[in-house]
Amino acid sequence: MPEGEFAFIRHHLRPLAAGTPAALGLADDAAVLTPTPGHEIVLTKDAIVAGVHFLPDDPADTVARKLLRVNLSDLAAMGARPVGHLLVFARPPDLTEAWIEGFCQGLAGDQAIFGCGLLGGDTVSTPGPLTLSLTAIGEVPAGRALRRNGAHVGDELWVSGTLGDGALGLRMLTGKLEAPPEAAAALIERYRVPEPRVALGVALRGLASAAIDVSDGLLADLEHVLAASGVGAEVRAGDLPLSKAAGGLEGAEEAALSGGDDYELLFTVPIARRREVEALGATRDLRLTRIGRITADLALRVLDPGGREIASPKRGWQHF
Amino acid sequence: MPEGEFAFIRHHLRPLAAGTPAALGLADDAAVLTPTPGHEIVLTKDAIVAGVHFLPDDPADTVARKLLRVNLSDLAAMGARPVGHLLVFARPPDLTEAWIEGFCQGLAGDQAIFGCGLLGGDTVSTPGPLTLSLTAIGEVPAGRALRRNGAHVGDELWVSGTLGDGALGLRMLTGKLEAPPEAAAALIERYRVPEPRVALGVALRGLASAAIDVSDGLLADLEHVLAASGVGAEVRAGDLPLSKAAGGLEGAEEAALSGGDDYELLFTVPIARRREVEALGATRDLRLTRIGRITADLALRVLDPGGREIASPKRGWQHF
Repeated sequence: MPEGEFAFIRHHLRPLAAGTPAALGLADDAAVLTPTPGHEIVLTKDAIVAGVHFLPDDPADTVARKLLRVNLSDLAAMGARPVGHLLVFARPPDLTEAWIEGFCQGLAGDQAIFGCGLLGGDTVSTPGPLTLSLTAIGEVPAGRALRRNGAHVGDELWVSGTLGDGALGLRMLTGKLEAPPEAAAALIERYRVPEPRVALGVALRGLASAAIDVSDGLLADLEHVLAASGVGAEVRAGDLPLSKAAGGLEGAEEAALSGGDDYELLFTVPIARRREVEALGATRDLRLTRIGRITADLALRVLDPGGREIASPKRGWQHF
Repeated sequence: MPEGEFAFIRHHLRPLAAGTPAALGLADDAAVLTPTPGHEIVLTKDAIVAGVHFLPDDPADTVARKLLRVNLSDLAAMGARPVGHLLVFARPPDLTEAWIEGFCQGLAGDQAIFGCGLLGGDTVSTPGPLTLSLTAIGEVPAGRALRRNGAHVGDELWVSGTLGDGALGLRMLTGKLEAPPEAAAALIERYRVPEPRVALGVALRGLASAAIDVSDGLLADLEHVLAASGVGAEVRAGDLPLSKAAGGLEGAEEAALSGGDDYELLFTVPIARRREVEALGATRDLRLTRIGRITADLALRVLDPGGREIASPKRGWQHF
């Protein structure tokens, strides 16, 4: 390992592991994590590449926060509580120390918010663009993980928060959409720093019959649930929750149906338990919206407010 | 997620996860692993970049095998048994299907050998070089992980297998060294497909006082053990185990002291338990060699066969 990599680990990564005993101070060959008895370990891993998954001028702290949050969103979709993460940092030669500092500050802040410290980290040099890979580790009581394959005919379809903001924020950053300054700022913030629904995922254990996070777009992700569960669905386009910032903007409804980067939870619940979901939303001050229902035929239908099927919107997703 | 990424996961990654129930068929947001009761989870993560960590013409199957084995070597150094891994594949546009097939075949073979299936995988596009990141997951009975910080004054210093082969193999591949064809083939194979000492690591639980794998070079890695344990060491240069292929080659002794890429285990054992280590080597038909001892003063000394300290060789490592 070249000196630059030792220095990077010592200066930047070790402080991020300081609060996580399982990391062993990043001074051993690996981390040693003690699972909570009766729990299962939940593991997910994502990578992002500069210029592909984030914009060159996205602030460094938001790049770190989004990388962690996107992975925590996967844990949330399984009903898992985060316990730690491992990070690989592939650095191009021109990456500045200031950028790295900003990245680590953003990560440290979010580690504290989500109780998810650094367990292991590595850094390598690359002649290519900055590439970051994060493995998030969570825990869930044995047998209680939320899955994609449990949706039943008649279950209602719910979504947390609001949809479309992330995609609209990206359109603004790339000059494809304009909005009043306050709305623009809100949407860009949603794109850059999504909110993983960790507490909601934990609360949905034993209540939701299936769950997924909305990362590729509502319809694309719903399709995964339908395929895994062997069912179909009707989605009421008029019921999709839009934020104040998104409402009225050009393309807002299409973004809500098909835009990615929302990281809300999409989940199904038996109709008899509707009140429990409503109570959950009320006690957590979190908008939870019924947007459709699971059907027996295998199609995915989008309905207008009059109940008529509307032309299939641009979906940005693929059948398997 | 673009169609190309779905197809990649479907065609290449899913088959690698087929034998690993915890992977949930790569069809959920994350893997769910049931830890063995009374065990701790051991986690490590490494990344490799084409042109930096492997050579452009290294065979694809050996790139996969080395990536997995290097991580398994970290688990071995902790005394952990592998249970699975997660893989990120950042692909440049010109990567051929044949290369990917070769990579996956190599990985599948080693997954079977080491009982370490794919738990999760992701693929992204990159305009840069092929970049691969692997997170290996292992298990160890609670409290029994091998650490770097347990070496005591008087403990003997042991190493498995032979040293220097990996560095000599790399020198051959880069045209810096010549050797008879049979020796050259053996050394290149050692560089490309190292042997993680998984079974040895497990057997050393409760016997070794400290352990590390030799990845940066014997002296560099020994230095990590000394720093963590607060001790020094004497290494007898004449006792370092050289392979038949390496013996007599120019630079073999320096490679054994300072070359990287060996992935042998370096460990310390109380002198009173020497016979147990010898028995371990005999029953496993694995060469285990005493190469020195732990000392009270904090220096790392290399001694010639006459017991005289020799000039500090080029170490390729750094003090913290």
